[in-house]
Amino acid sequence: MRLAPDEARLRLAAARVARLATISPDGHPHVVPVTFAVAGDAIYTAVDAKPKRTPRLRRLSNVRANPRVALLADHYDEDWSALWWARADGLAAVLDDEAGMAAPIGLLSRRYSQYEENTPTGPVIAIRVLRWSGWAAT
Amino acid sequence: MRLAPDEARLRLAAARVARLATISPDGHPHVVPVTFAVAGDAIYTAVDAKPKRTPRLRRLSNVRANPRVALLADHYDEDWSALWWARADGLAAVLDDEAGMAAPIGLLSRRYSQYEENTPTGPVIAIRVLRWSGWAAT
Repeated sequence: MRLAPDEARLRLAAARVARLATISPDGHPHVVPVTFAVAGDAIYTAVDAKPKRTPRLRRLSNVRANPRVALLADHYDEDWSALWWARADGLAAVLDDEAGMAAPIGLLSRRYSQYEENTPTGPVIAIRVLRWSGWAAT
Repeated sequence: MRLAPDEARLRLAAARVARLATISPDGHPHVVPVTFAVAGDAIYTAVDAKPKRTPRLRRLSNVRANPRVALLADHYDEDWSALWWARADGLAAVLDDEAGMAAPIGLLSRRYSQYEENTPTGPVIAIRVLRWSGWAAT
């Protein structure tokens, strides 16, 4: 049932989408789906060319004000014995300098072929993972 | 791109799984996948018989300490023109009395046939939605 940290990291790293939870400056939880890449105990997600609801992204202002984040991947199946989730809890920083963004954006571009034609421009959110956890029904 | 509140509610209500974001008493974001049912501007999710990592669920203690929650449903597809998400922001309460839990558990049991043999015992988290929002790539 409970996943070992390494198993949680493996499952999260293999997922194609995850949900980033942050806390807004006025104390509300915020959660949004993101593409991402895992490298060791770091996770990167970038602002990309997908059209956004607003150009000023709340995930960025939230992380700048409060670095505490959680990232969740999960698998849903109507056969509930196949359910699982994996989560990373950590501290995030916003990278917006070319030098700092280059490696994460390279990682993301290799992971998602969709980025080949539209390389993310950034900023990048870099998460230092302090805890990997997870659960599986069986 | 931006979804109208009614459209966000429709998409979220039709999803089979969503992710509940809460804030822990020590100020960390928490996010976990949940089954749920929408009724008007209310959303219900219940502690059920699926084995949990711990019997004392953080989602419950978080909501009891801070009612602010966000619930997200999203659709991932390798064709990124098909991406969308829908979110409900609101205030949650924990229901643990038989009378209060009966209607939500009835709603959940009708929505998920998996609950037929294992009716959720509760508690129930009841969310009063203050804002429906969402996004679609096309």
